[in-house]
Amino acid sequence: MSRSAVAAMTAYTLDLREADVKLNQNESPYDFPRELKEEALARVLDRPWNLYPDFESLALREAIASAEGLTAGNILAGNGSNELLAAAVGTFVGPGTPVVFPRPAFALYEKLITISGGLALPVDFDPDSGLLPVDEMLAVIAAHQNPVSILCSPNNPTGGVLPENGLDRLLRSGAMVLFDRAYCDFEEGGPAGEPALCSNLVTFRTFSKAFGLASLRVGWLESTAENCREIRKVKLPYSLNIISEAIATIALGNRELRDAHVASIIAERRRVLEAMRAIPGITPFPTSANFIAFRTPDARRMFEALLARRVLVRDVSAYPRLKNCLRVSIGSPEQNDAFLDALREAL
Amino acid sequence: MSRSAVAAMTAYTLDLREADVKLNQNESPYDFPRELKEEALARVLDRPWNLYPDFESLALREAIASAEGLTAGNILAGNGSNELLAAAVGTFVGPGTPVVFPRPAFALYEKLITISGGLALPVDFDPDSGLLPVDEMLAVIAAHQNPVSILCSPNNPTGGVLPENGLDRLLRSGAMVLFDRAYCDFEEGGPAGEPALCSNLVTFRTFSKAFGLASLRVGWLESTAENCREIRKVKLPYSLNIISEAIATIALGNRELRDAHVASIIAERRRVLEAMRAIPGITPFPTSANFIAFRTPDARRMFEALLARRVLVRDVSAYPRLKNCLRVSIGSPEQNDAFLDALREAL
Repeated sequence: MSRSAVAAMTAYTLDLREADVKLNQNESPYDFPRELKEEALARVLDRPWNLYPDFESLALREAIASAEGLTAGNILAGNGSNELLAAAVGTFVGPGTPVVFPRPAFALYEKLITISGGLALPVDFDPDSGLLPVDEMLAVIAAHQNPVSILCSPNNPTGGVLPENGLDRLLRSGAMVLFDRAYCDFEEGGPAGEPALCSNLVTFRTFSKAFGLASLRVGWLESTAENCREIRKVKLPYSLNIISEAIATIALGNRELRDAHVASIIAERRRVLEAMRAIPGITPFPTSANFIAFRTPDARRMFEALLARRVLVRDVSAYPRLKNCLRVSIGSPEQNDAFLDALREAL
Repeated sequence: MSRSAVAAMTAYTLDLREADVKLNQNESPYDFPRELKEEALARVLDRPWNLYPDFESLALREAIASAEGLTAGNILAGNGSNELLAAAVGTFVGPGTPVVFPRPAFALYEKLITISGGLALPVDFDPDSGLLPVDEMLAVIAAHQNPVSILCSPNNPTGGVLPENGLDRLLRSGAMVLFDRAYCDFEEGGPAGEPALCSNLVTFRTFSKAFGLASLRVGWLESTAENCREIRKVKLPYSLNIISEAIATIALGNRELRDAHVASIIAERRRVLEAMRAIPGITPFPTSANFIAFRTPDARRMFEALLARRVLVRDVSAYPRLKNCLRVSIGSPEQNDAFLDALREAL
């Protein structure tokens, strides 16, 4: 029998529906170019598959560090940023540790807090302003001893961001801040206020979104060398396979590709947002991510009506404060047109 | 600052030394054949790398289930069996949960117990008999409420196995048994007493050893559908990338290759053991795994002397009861000859 904390949990689920226009997982619409795929696979063909990966993923960590202006000691690479988030929660959250987080947010945070036995302190907020509730979070942080804070900006699934100086204020509170930056590449004008290394800050990044490599499960974290050493004690060794590691390194060496894809996604987001705002009955929230959350008259009916028109979005209406809300990823111009057409028809 | 339980931990480390004859990580000496590598990579070239893997790794789980005579609901696949072990410990071990395990054993077990806040109850044993200390483990199990047991048979790093009926006796004790079977393929005559599904048993398997795919990080677990559902709540979603999953599926479809490699490793183990027993001052322990642990007059000097002769083994002398012991993986006949020559010269 599983322990009671786990027995009481629900599993992370995904509505496994299929559709031609798949806009339900915030994936990039741009596949890795075939010639780069071939280069990457040729590179791994001659390597021994029977031997463990490099213990420290050093080649990739050095490539990331060089791109980020850091050293490899400030980077941990892993099997998706989720793995690194789990390791960081295991490092900083023990039984009873107060953990402050905005809600609605990525469901994994609450799940990781529960598994660690931490005290979950959600700060519910409305997504309408497009801002995360920093004042309310600071009040909860101030009321607890040695708190940890987990947040994502731009936030999933709402798209909102930290207000100006929001991160500075959280850091000055003394809380250990676990800062998920999965969607930061999609902020207008580039990641706003990219944080410097700081003893109470760990940032998490991913190759799944802007780099368009969700299938390969590669992420990294950045922090002080001391925090990296502590998190490395909890993280499983050898968690990154040699093929994903090689491909991520190649992706880093072709950043102009990522930049072009990001620019196109930002332009499309602007266009889709504008079009959605013109549709009566649809209320999209401000977003700096590669997706748009929006309120509809009836989420379940709209979800099915879109699906009947071959468009799959994400039903996020079960999240607190997201009654009747759906979330749509920004896809290619053709995918976005298909979504907008379906949305207009469905109403 | 990391929480105190983590601050007190030491990191999992590996002596990063290089040598021509690498026999320090229990890897298979046989690389995946080039034509199968090419087949596997061709298969992933046309898949979209920008999309997340299948949420449930269903294709691989069905292939494993079919090979094992089970259904996919009895299987979870993950990023190496380590990931699944961590998820199972997170599922069954909470603060204060008593966890009984033989020692010396794979260092990860104790680390996972510490992270979960469980009560670590090691049962120290001498590796000389080649048997795990079931009687002593049962006594500790009987003295605790709702205990969990973690063990590996054949055991790493000693090579010993459970005595006859050992698993049955552990299961009858009522303890939740997490049974690591990473090395079971190397038992003479095949895995002994392969366990049936049972509500207090979870078994862990890997593609890293007998299948020779350590670089790809793929493992699986087998248990009742109910246990799988519970562990799945704790396991991270999407933990297996599409390339490793595709390659593991191809490896399963070529089991005769694995069987031939395993037969050769077992034959070589017999030969190397016999040769080692004939060397004065060297005491190898009985082993059913793809490695041999052995006592030497001076582990550190022997480790360096072997390395000076281009042979890298594992220094396991810091484990309890393994003073002056080293561990050598069974490699190819040429690698094993190089090891035996170096060992004789070094003495």
